[in-house]
Amino acid sequence: MAKEYDLVIVGAGISGLSAGMYAGRLGLKTLCLGASSAEEMAIGGIITTTSDIDNFPGYIKISGIELAERIRKHAEEYGIEIKEERVKAIEKKEEDFVVKTDKNNYLAKTVLIATGTERRKLEAKNADKFENKGVVYCAYCDAHLFKDKIVAIVGGANAAAKEALLLAGKAKKVYIIYRKEKLRAEKAFMDKIENEKKIEIINNANVLEVRGDKVVRGVVLDREYNGSRELKLDGIFVALGNTASSEIVHDLNVELNEKNEIKTNKNCETNVPGVYAAGDVTDREWKQAITAVAEGCIAAYSAFKYLKSKK
Amino acid sequence: MAKEYDLVIVGAGISGLSAGMYAGRLGLKTLCLGASSAEEMAIGGIITTTSDIDNFPGYIKISGIELAERIRKHAEEYGIEIKEERVKAIEKKEEDFVVKTDKNNYLAKTVLIATGTERRKLEAKNADKFENKGVVYCAYCDAHLFKDKIVAIVGGANAAAKEALLLAGKAKKVYIIYRKEKLRAEKAFMDKIENEKKIEIINNANVLEVRGDKVVRGVVLDREYNGSRELKLDGIFVALGNTASSEIVHDLNVELNEKNEIKTNKNCETNVPGVYAAGDVTDREWKQAITAVAEGCIAAYSAFKYLKSKK
Repeated sequence: MAKEYDLVIVGAGISGLSAGMYAGRLGLKTLCLGASSAEEMAIGGIITTTSDIDNFPGYIKISGIELAERIRKHAEEYGIEIKEERVKAIEKKEEDFVVKTDKNNYLAKTVLIATGTERRKLEAKNADKFENKGVVYCAYCDAHLFKDKIVAIVGGANAAAKEALLLAGKAKKVYIIYRKEKLRAEKAFMDKIENEKKIEIINNANVLEVRGDKVVRGVVLDREYNGSRELKLDGIFVALGNTASSEIVHDLNVELNEKNEIKTNKNCETNVPGVYAAGDVTDREWKQAITAVAEGCIAAYSAFKYLKSKK
Repeated sequence: MAKEYDLVIVGAGISGLSAGMYAGRLGLKTLCLGASSAEEMAIGGIITTTSDIDNFPGYIKISGIELAERIRKHAEEYGIEIKEERVKAIEKKEEDFVVKTDKNNYLAKTVLIATGTERRKLEAKNADKFENKGVVYCAYCDAHLFKDKIVAIVGGANAAAKEALLLAGKAKKVYIIYRKEKLRAEKAFMDKIENEKKIEIINNANVLEVRGDKVVRGVVLDREYNGSRELKLDGIFVALGNTASSEIVHDLNVELNEKNEIKTNKNCETNVPGVYAAGDVTDREWKQAITAVAEGCIAAYSAFKYLKSKK
């Protein structure tokens, strides 16, 4: 017989762990599942790949690893189980759900999807080596680190355009390196980019290599720009997009938006009773550590309320 | 000429201060207004009246004063202005808003209402007469006054449970007087209450009258308890919950729900463009420190996005 839980949380990033903490407080028998370390969806989640977080209210500066660790410990205070198991499938079974991992099956009265996203990485020589040493993935988080510096955005969609405009407020010079002829951002952004003298678009170009010493110093492009393939830079903002890790709900008929993000209301409920979603996997437009954490707490409460109403 | 801001935040509790932090990061010229200390809506907000917070993810235990102080400092890191001024009115002026305080007028392109709540008073004969003479509203502030005394909490939700537990550490005896059959506090609190011999619950009871001379000596209940309607007490802690402080938006045609809470969507937008709301003043059903903080951040972003779209 599969072990039974009030709530099984799929994903053990800061959103899932915060949900676990609150669920434990609310007296729910709770299991939180993350993959093993060094994998995507590991316990701690994607935030552990961020060096300095300075926008989580209450912590002027904290590393992603430390924040995740603190929230994990916090969850453990309330006696929930956290296991290193990779969830393979979730199936409806009468009123409940069967959560199948690589090791076990669990019966869950409610499930919370907190599986986050996968980042589309910059595929260029040494890009991985300079991750968080100049190769960064979040302009809102890190723009202030590049005040009066020269930076490049890699990408050409809305995210890239938005980040470029944001960075133009801080940096000395902002390049947008895009593989195609024309950016595919909304007109409103495009108009603003045209009027922003700090921004320069390098179209039809790909980054072949990231160069630097301890930190990024520049990139090598696959075509010449202003007479050289080398471009001096202090920072590279990768804006190639993320994809929501929502495949796991495909069999549950959970509604997704056009980006495969799980549609949720203000209470983190999905269209399927007993199924909740929190954090980066949801359709929140502006995804932050603090919003993911709060959503976890809200989702735990919604599960609690649902279970109460069924009794 | 009134000084002009991109965003004026009305209320400087942890929600307003978190909004300030994010607004500062996003480059908005921001003013955050709280009343002077020892008043309702003081800088730091209502959380400063809570001794031990153990449900803010990342802090296994922290005092309300310390959490508020950390978030205030965090906001100040990003150069926003925080002023001790009481907001008297907010008026629409063409595309902008005029925020009138007891000291100044400010012109705001957007406003965030983060005014929180006011405590609900005890409605019993003579309750007002004994206010601060035994009838008090903050266990954390006043528990020390009742060392080895007999006290009662009036209320039955989380706040009442928390205050009862706090008081049990000081007082000789703690009654919880609740109008319904069963307290509706979280399980974590209920478990502790069951194990605390000093706490005794008087259910299905209301306070009709407060009695005393210079100070409170007892109450009259609407039912007998241990053979009498009179209960000897040295102090009464009122924990009847709060009402939304939303009067300030009455002239702006901001939609409220039946509890006078400001209706907000997932992005903390109200029905009025340029007006946002976050924290306890909103219609979120389940109000927590973490949700108030996250909403502040979301509201700041929504204001940022709105201002960008207008340019």
